[in-house]
Amino acid sequence: METEFISWLRSRVASHPRVSLGIGDDAAVLQLGGADCVVTTDMLTDGVDFDVDLHAPSRIGHKALAVSLSDIAAMAAEPVAAFVSLLVPKSSEPTLAARLLEGMIPLAESLDVAIAGGDTNTWKGKLVINTTLVGKTTGAGPLTRGGARPGDWIVVTGALGGSILGRHLDVRPRVREILELRKHYAIHAGIDVSDGLAFDLSRIAQESQCGVVVELDAIPIHNDARRLVADKPDLGAAVDHALGDGEDFELILAVAPDVAARMIDQQPLEIPLTRIGRFVDEPGMWQTDARGLRAPLPAIGFQHKLGE
Amino acid sequence: METEFISWLRSRVASHPRVSLGIGDDAAVLQLGGADCVVTTDMLTDGVDFDVDLHAPSRIGHKALAVSLSDIAAMAAEPVAAFVSLLVPKSSEPTLAARLLEGMIPLAESLDVAIAGGDTNTWKGKLVINTTLVGKTTGAGPLTRGGARPGDWIVVTGALGGSILGRHLDVRPRVREILELRKHYAIHAGIDVSDGLAFDLSRIAQESQCGVVVELDAIPIHNDARRLVADKPDLGAAVDHALGDGEDFELILAVAPDVAARMIDQQPLEIPLTRIGRFVDEPGMWQTDARGLRAPLPAIGFQHKLGE
Repeated sequence: METEFISWLRSRVASHPRVSLGIGDDAAVLQLGGADCVVTTDMLTDGVDFDVDLHAPSRIGHKALAVSLSDIAAMAAEPVAAFVSLLVPKSSEPTLAARLLEGMIPLAESLDVAIAGGDTNTWKGKLVINTTLVGKTTGAGPLTRGGARPGDWIVVTGALGGSILGRHLDVRPRVREILELRKHYAIHAGIDVSDGLAFDLSRIAQESQCGVVVELDAIPIHNDARRLVADKPDLGAAVDHALGDGEDFELILAVAPDVAARMIDQQPLEIPLTRIGRFVDEPGMWQTDARGLRAPLPAIGFQHKLGE
Repeated sequence: METEFISWLRSRVASHPRVSLGIGDDAAVLQLGGADCVVTTDMLTDGVDFDVDLHAPSRIGHKALAVSLSDIAAMAAEPVAAFVSLLVPKSSEPTLAARLLEGMIPLAESLDVAIAGGDTNTWKGKLVINTTLVGKTTGAGPLTRGGARPGDWIVVTGALGGSILGRHLDVRPRVREILELRKHYAIHAGIDVSDGLAFDLSRIAQESQCGVVVELDAIPIHNDARRLVADKPDLGAAVDHALGDGEDFELILAVAPDVAARMIDQQPLEIPLTRIGRFVDEPGMWQTDARGLRAPLPAIGFQHKLGE
């Protein structure tokens, strides 16, 4: 089966100018043209990141590729090639691997990313997908978590919370958006919201050796978070979902006040850019409400990753 | 736990001149200095590639890194950085992830490879390890499977067969060896023996659009293959183990006759280089015995991979 699967995949994925050697040899060869190489890897599992009994393989495949693309976006790098390892249950239908890949291909093609290799095996356990994304830096260099400066505004893309209603599968990695932003605005630091706004804010604050003050009323709350709360009032307030749910895969950016004000005024993207607070000298996480009262902000969120 | 694990790993792995950003951000940044980027990925599972109840975590970790390094060796590339995804059973001891990494670190350090990122999760299933290796091409370019020419000699490193007795864990990827060979000899094509000499020969023949004639009596048979047969005569002849066992992680090379003859005469490595046959015009796999009689050679071997 594997040889046929490789043949199918080789025929299914288009050739790519940056991939001088793709699927079928011992390794792939990528031409990055002297840029630095940016690499991230994510392992997703049935029962944690998706449910193979509930979700279509195409959506699962899409998510597996999208979460790694989101890391590349958080580095403000151009994605080049994806490498997909699959562990497929022996009991699953024989087309599962192909259907997972079919879910990745439209997203890959839309961002000009090659699926350039992988490793597919069957076993008696549950479905496991590991995706590695290789990208290249732009002239502006990589956007790290460590560059936020006290005084910088905290800017987020899109709206947050309630991804469990489906958006955690239909991830739209902000690759094009960050590359477009960076052409016109200086950005000091960035991270994607994978484990929760508050938790990922704590990461960027820690790496930048400063603190954050979040203005709760400024957080753009996704309608999904409001729906969650309307359906189940015991789940807490919508803003708590925006702070803690995670898997939004929006970007948190640190931008100097004058540049951030211009960016927010111009709204250059199809998705909104919103100021939700600022970075401060004193370490720690703080929240302020409408009356300006300051209280500690717990770094809530879903923590199950090794930092990528 | 994960944050502590990241902190531990960050402190445990040395900084590396080619890794400008390592563990702890959204992705790693590698400086390849204008060379092409070579990427391979392998997923290993408990019960198939190792047995977590029988094998020490350090040996399992070593194997997981070594099989990907062997792919980099088969491309004659210089390995630069490794990215390790772990799925650790919730029931396992809390130090398992660290002990697996501790098994990788000596091998990584011996080849100047950085462990630059990864993704660690726990789950209710069995141990899964995915390793992605990123390397860079040398001035000679990548060594593919597709460059063998009719008339080329088939040259193998080391000795083959019986890896199941333990060598399949204690893999010695031929990274230094191939880089050294390529400084002095033109090599047309290469592949590593992961799934079996005969099967991997069929891959290099197919990609090079030619055939192979293997001289059975010339195959360097490992003592492990002879021990296997001595202990269990019903397992077949030692040469069959050399042809079909796989996981030897030696290299099969295609070299022009004059260069190959010089290489074999000079024996520039600590491990032997042996001529085992030649590439021929007519497609197909053939074997000859001591009397020169020719018969088809079945492409036996263990087939469970996607071609990497």
